[in-house]
Amino acid sequence: MEKKKIIGIMGPGSGATENDLKAAFKIGEIVAEKGFYVLTGGRASGVMEAAMKGSKSGGGTTIGILPSEDGKDLSDFVEIPIKTGMGSARNNINVLTADIIIGIGIGPGTASEIALAIKAEKKVLLINQRDDAIGFFKSFGHNKLFILQNTEEITDHLDT
Amino acid sequence: MEKKKIIGIMGPGSGATENDLKAAFKIGEIVAEKGFYVLTGGRASGVMEAAMKGSKSGGGTTIGILPSEDGKDLSDFVEIPIKTGMGSARNNINVLTADIIIGIGIGPGTASEIALAIKAEKKVLLINQRDDAIGFFKSFGHNKLFILQNTEEITDHLDT
Amino acid sequence: MEKKKIIGIMGPGSGATENDLKAAFKIGEIVAEKGFYVLTGGRASGVMEAAMKGSKSGGGTTIGILPSEDGKDLSDFVEIPIKTGMGSARNNINVLTADIIIGIGIGPGTASEIALAIKAEKKVLLINQRDDAIGFFKSFGHNKLFILQNTEEITDHLDT
Amino acid sequence: MEKKKIIGIMGPGSGATENDLKAAFKIGEIVAEKGFYVLTGGRASGVMEAAMKGSKSGGGTTIGILPSEDGKDLSDFVEIPIKTGMGSARNNINVLTADIIIGIGIGPGTASEIALAIKAEKKVLLINQRDDAIGFFKSFGHNKLFILQNTEEITDHLDT
Repeated sequence: MEKKKIIGIMGPGSGATENDLKAAFKIGEIVAEKGFYVLTGGRASGVMEAAMKGSKSGGGTTIGILPSEDGKDLSDFVEIPIKTGMGSARNNINVLTADIIIGIGIGPGTASEIALAIKAEKKVLLINQRDDAIGFFKSFGHNKLFILQNTEEITDHLDT
Repeated sequence: MEKKKIIGIMGPGSGATENDLKAAFKIGEIVAEKGFYVLTGGRASGVMEAAMKGSKSGGGTTIGILPSEDGKDLSDFVEIPIKTGMGSARNNINVLTADIIIGIGIGPGTASEIALAIKAEKKVLLINQRDDAIGFFKSFGHNKLFILQNTEEITDHLDT
Repeated sequence: MEKKKIIGIMGPGSGATENDLKAAFKIGEIVAEKGFYVLTGGRASGVMEAAMKGSKSGGGTTIGILPSEDGKDLSDFVEIPIKTGMGSARNNINVLTADIIIGIGIGPGTASEIALAIKAEKKVLLINQRDDAIGFFKSFGHNKLFILQNTEEITDHLDT
Repeated sequence: MEKKKIIGIMGPGSGATENDLKAAFKIGEIVAEKGFYVLTGGRASGVMEAAMKGSKSGGGTTIGILPSEDGKDLSDFVEIPIKTGMGSARNNINVLTADIIIGIGIGPGTASEIALAIKAEKKVLLINQRDDAIGFFKSFGHNKLFILQNTEEITDHLDT
């Protein structure tokens, strides 16, 4: 059966900036238009929800990997909710399941996901990151880490 | 957004009987025709794969929650592969994510899933089970446990 | 460094019978006197807590693998609390970590642990079990499953 | 029962520097002399193993939270091995279980643990870190993050 690529879009919840939300929506939309799944942490907050709204706008399907066991924190824009009941340990499932991980903005949860993605040797795309974050993640010498200047560049990086 | 119900179909891999495989295919097909997702453990074996083949035959979409971190054990009939890297600990994710759990045939992995489903107070349907298994699972006094005599009965039990 | 054997004692929490609690205390005590660690699910309830009280009486050390992330459900008799934040998915950690799994009494959580232990091919000892449970678990043909008639027999089964 | 504090010592495996290993040994020793448990990722490598050797030298007890399900990667200096079978998802268990997390040196796994510790609002001590890592982790505004200049300072920071 067809295996569509799964693109993980990671970023802060309540701490997301306006720019983070705009970028997440746009990238979710582009990913959906390319025919790929958007995967997020599934909660009704910040970059997660914005990316899934973008996916809907692009006609795509969304997968949400939830920390809770009952889905009480579930965004209305998740079509396939995976209820892990594992809290932040589910961050590693996000990373393993996604073919590519995109980090938009930063917070401690997002930082853990980017680090786990580098550990798992996944392709990682970073956007809307401060210089300190870029310098930090570059320091691991991961050869599949790319820093994007704008959301349009994403289309050049969706191969795995 | 539309939340289709997720029906977890659990059963043995290599230990599945011919009857288990037939029932899994048929139930996967019925579930898909009703417009629901089929969720399984995702591996290319036994009840899992038969249920997903049935889902395909019924025009449905399949979710596979994999024990591995790299998907090397993935059935070709999984459309949405979730790579947990957690081995049998992923059995609890199967149970939490599914709205209804259907146990077809038995093995130790399936037994753990039925038990976890009862623990999580999920609706549980059992089919192709020996009397000892039925007696054992009934002993917990779970009021959402149903024993099916044949695959057709499934249609009476897909409400949650 | 010395690796003491870890003996997992599993059984119901609030659903434990008087006999379950007595057996758990006695077995926890024997295991501790033999110089082994007692591992439980760590909560302040039922077989878990009774086994850890027994271990204390026998001069042993207890390991509790907790479902919660903050230890709010922690028994006072756990010396080494492992906070998983994973709910019932932690049952598989109990099983993998223990060298031998002893099931005292039954409930759905305990049933999942016995099944996962058989799946993981661990040595499993059952005590205070009804005939239906014994018949069910025997049906998997696991060659390291033993049914004990009384707590004293435990001393014959602590090799791995 | 007495609950000794659990101090998580996190750092790179094969990528650890000589200074990381020396600091890990010294801090493991100090923590043990204070009567606390040393918790690590449990593998026979780098900062993990050095910290546990230090703990032994200080007369302490070590807890190793292993990624594997069979302990094949287990350091000889772990006294209490917890076999999770969860790969890097076990990093969150390290963080939740430890009362204080000490990051010595850096790599992607360690970065994920420091980030998860900040997310979980745990006390975090960093030593042997480059300026980019310090700047990055400070950016989250966590009020329980401390940068140590040398191993001796650790004694001022072992309260929680």
